[in-house]
Amino acid sequence: MDVTMEKITALAKSRGFFYPGSDLYGGLANTYDYGPVGAELLRNIRNLWWSYFVTKRSDVVGLDASVISNHKIWEASGHTASFADAMIDCKNCKSRFRADHLIEDYLEDMTDEEKKFTNLVFEPGYFDISEDEVKNVLETGKVEGLSEVKLNALIKGFQIKCRKCKQIQWTPVRKFNQLFPVQLGLVEGEGGSAYLRGETAQNIFIDFKLVVDSNRVRLPFGIAQLGKSFRNEITPGNSIFRTIEFEQGELEYFFDPEVTNWEKTFDTWKETMYTFVTQALGVQSEKLRWRTHSDEERSFYSTKTEDLEYQFPFGFKELWGLAYRTDYDLQNHMKNSGRDLSIVDPQTGKKIVPHVIEPAVGINRLLLMVLSDAFTQEEDRVVLKFAPKVAPVKAAVFPLLANKPELTELAQKVYQTLQEKVNGKILWDDRGNIGKRYLSQDEIGTPYCITVDFQSLEDQSVTVRDRDSKEQKRVAISELVSYIQERLV
Amino acid sequence: MDVTMEKITALAKSRGFFYPGSDLYGGLANTYDYGPVGAELLRNIRNLWWSYFVTKRSDVVGLDASVISNHKIWEASGHTASFADAMIDCKNCKSRFRADHLIEDYLEDMTDEEKKFTNLVFEPGYFDISEDEVKNVLETGKVEGLSEVKLNALIKGFQIKCRKCKQIQWTPVRKFNQLFPVQLGLVEGEGGSAYLRGETAQNIFIDFKLVVDSNRVRLPFGIAQLGKSFRNEITPGNSIFRTIEFEQGELEYFFDPEVTNWEKTFDTWKETMYTFVTQALGVQSEKLRWRTHSDEERSFYSTKTEDLEYQFPFGFKELWGLAYRTDYDLQNHMKNSGRDLSIVDPQTGKKIVPHVIEPAVGINRLLLMVLSDAFTQEEDRVVLKFAPKVAPVKAAVFPLLANKPELTELAQKVYQTLQEKVNGKILWDDRGNIGKRYLSQDEIGTPYCITVDFQSLEDQSVTVRDRDSKEQKRVAISELVSYIQERLV
Repeated sequence: MDVTMEKITALAKSRGFFYPGSDLYGGLANTYDYGPVGAELLRNIRNLWWSYFVTKRSDVVGLDASVISNHKIWEASGHTASFADAMIDCKNCKSRFRADHLIEDYLEDMTDEEKKFTNLVFEPGYFDISEDEVKNVLETGKVEGLSEVKLNALIKGFQIKCRKCKQIQWTPVRKFNQLFPVQLGLVEGEGGSAYLRGETAQNIFIDFKLVVDSNRVRLPFGIAQLGKSFRNEITPGNSIFRTIEFEQGELEYFFDPEVTNWEKTFDTWKETMYTFVTQALGVQSEKLRWRTHSDEERSFYSTKTEDLEYQFPFGFKELWGLAYRTDYDLQNHMKNSGRDLSIVDPQTGKKIVPHVIEPAVGINRLLLMVLSDAFTQEEDRVVLKFAPKVAPVKAAVFPLLANKPELTELAQKVYQTLQEKVNGKILWDDRGNIGKRYLSQDEIGTPYCITVDFQSLEDQSVTVRDRDSKEQKRVAISELVSYIQERLV
Repeated sequence: MDVTMEKITALAKSRGFFYPGSDLYGGLANTYDYGPVGAELLRNIRNLWWSYFVTKRSDVVGLDASVISNHKIWEASGHTASFADAMIDCKNCKSRFRADHLIEDYLEDMTDEEKKFTNLVFEPGYFDISEDEVKNVLETGKVEGLSEVKLNALIKGFQIKCRKCKQIQWTPVRKFNQLFPVQLGLVEGEGGSAYLRGETAQNIFIDFKLVVDSNRVRLPFGIAQLGKSFRNEITPGNSIFRTIEFEQGELEYFFDPEVTNWEKTFDTWKETMYTFVTQALGVQSEKLRWRTHSDEERSFYSTKTEDLEYQFPFGFKELWGLAYRTDYDLQNHMKNSGRDLSIVDPQTGKKIVPHVIEPAVGINRLLLMVLSDAFTQEEDRVVLKFAPKVAPVKAAVFPLLANKPELTELAQKVYQTLQEKVNGKILWDDRGNIGKRYLSQDEIGTPYCITVDFQSLEDQSVTVRDRDSKEQKRVAISELVSYIQERLV
């Protein structure tokens, strides 16, 4: 049966994966709160990422920098000038849309007949886009990389109506910066201009020299960061896929391009990312694909960018970007700060500004992928088939009957032992019948359910029920911890 | 020898615990970036907190809510009205000060003679404070809880000079709100008013019903959250002790006051907090003390508040607050949202609005405590005596000599095995002599240094050097993983 976003978000709310943010006071668009099960799942993904990319690597060190940062960083990085969405307003109903979404949605609804170019009205003043460019837009259905002027020309040329009130009374397309300014207004003179970071990557470039000077790193090496970034942007919905506040896992891998071959390094990182998703997170490989950015899409300083995409219920979307950014960022910050960010490559003895390859992933997207991928609608149940090491709850313990103190007592012992010894959350449930308790655990993806029954009182064994196969197995209580622990790796 | 903040911050910067934020562009006051070693230390503390207060408890569930939140939350909670610092400006040199700090610093510098009340000038208009209140301020050196009008009276009465320009040309004392507003300006009508959360606790009250409805919780139970909060405030320096962006670990423990005795619950939480600090984080108990809030200090809705204080290099300061907040927050949000937040207590069958006890700690303060407590200046070295489970780096592996391939090869094998099997960061070092490598690891508090020497090639054993005792022990390579692992718990 089809996995839809409706089913996923309904389950997410009813079982505590995530809820709409600020819900009690009418909500706040594009913010979400992770409930008990979601918070554990998020932590597991975060910890797996950090372990895989930082702790267990000898060539990567971590960083955990401030979200609030000096405005000069973002001016230097170009974010204050160009980190913007092109927006358009309907003067009639006051709705605001992202111009690219408006056009792309329109193109999707067009018939092939219409696409024969007939309804593009070249009124005076709308010749800002060439015939070839319009043809290309019609063929690909994409407008990425086009200027505001050209977006304007397309909206007016196609006579696109407001999606809400169906009128054509547009303002011009205007860019809105995505950075959130914050006023540090308490100390006069210091006030004004700081920003919430729009990405974690800039911290890494800014602190590059501090990290190099305080740690024994040798090229090639990476600096990685896990943390929240903030973008004031219009999102197309899709739940936690794109939110104004989100968590990034970014890594800048620094190397000397004269010593290290960038194509090979790029391919090695592709492998590493892919392996993390399929092995560490246990996600189906048939739902993954690579997509190379076109010249228009790619930032001007990037030589190559590829996205690892996952097939979400709403289609293939970017999960993890990999970009060769050359030495653009460090050079840029050298120029703007007036400080030397070059380092000596011990292999050549030369002073260089290293180049970088950047794998950048959204942790909340990883969670949505893991959740979508695990979501399985079977005839008699919904079951989340998480890889055990990702699962938010590792095991649940049940006394067969709640009203038999001897069962409860032994089950409590088993529960407490597991809670103490097993790495991860263990739940207790003594309500309703066993079948219902299984179904309840299936919905949050608990890999093992342990039942203490009358036989347990005689032979100190329990049943362990496997989530995916539903098979039950008798395991001695003395061996239970290692039985579970082994299966969580 | 004395541990000073100067020594700690110098080491923090030189070895990568933390750096001033936005340093490349002239810095940004009261922000800090955690470097490679600091990021690992922060993670260890965070993970220990979560494990101790959430994962390993059957009566607590976690939450991970959005930082950006609807303005109505903060209006309802009273933060927009009262969450403010009383500030005063010097009209001459434009410096701004926290009024309470200005007065308290002045009182500290006063001689006993001066304190005899002689220099308090009761000019017309400055009779806003009573003689008894002034006496109390002189005796205690504290002004906490006094209104702006009274702070004004004290500053003018004592004729306190500007600390910078030494003039007396003050503006009145004014309150500045500590919440950071953010403009969600992209969608018309939705714009205006959201705030960065000023504390994580409000998320817990807001999401209370969502959590209860999506999880099997039963009174008494706790909801815990770990995450960043933001406060636009003047800080007295002291490095990472108080910053505009900081991480909180807050827990709201909900109970029915007719069933659960609040005094007992309060005391149990005191024990739990204390045990966490001394056992889980391994901090010296003689530097810890409890302080009960006075009536003026305590929030009006709180029946009792105690702080666990730690003796930092700059004196005893709040580490962890514990407050009995009654049902104030839930009642308040019920009133303001118009939604019912009561739940049925299964033990009494009654519908109630539960009361809460709140243990609230700053994670960055825990880190500063752990660092200060570990910092040991010995005659021949600086050594950070972290509890092994807290230590940012668990072990370092050295080949005795860097130019002997057979030593390097075996040492690399040992290094890779430890990296794969041991939970935590392992470092490699082959530079300089062994003595220097030891000193370098001592400075970041690595509990174990492992050297592969010529004997290792013959008998497959290594030396393991203990950080604190400096003792060296011969351990078989085959037993090394379990030798280290056992000592990290």
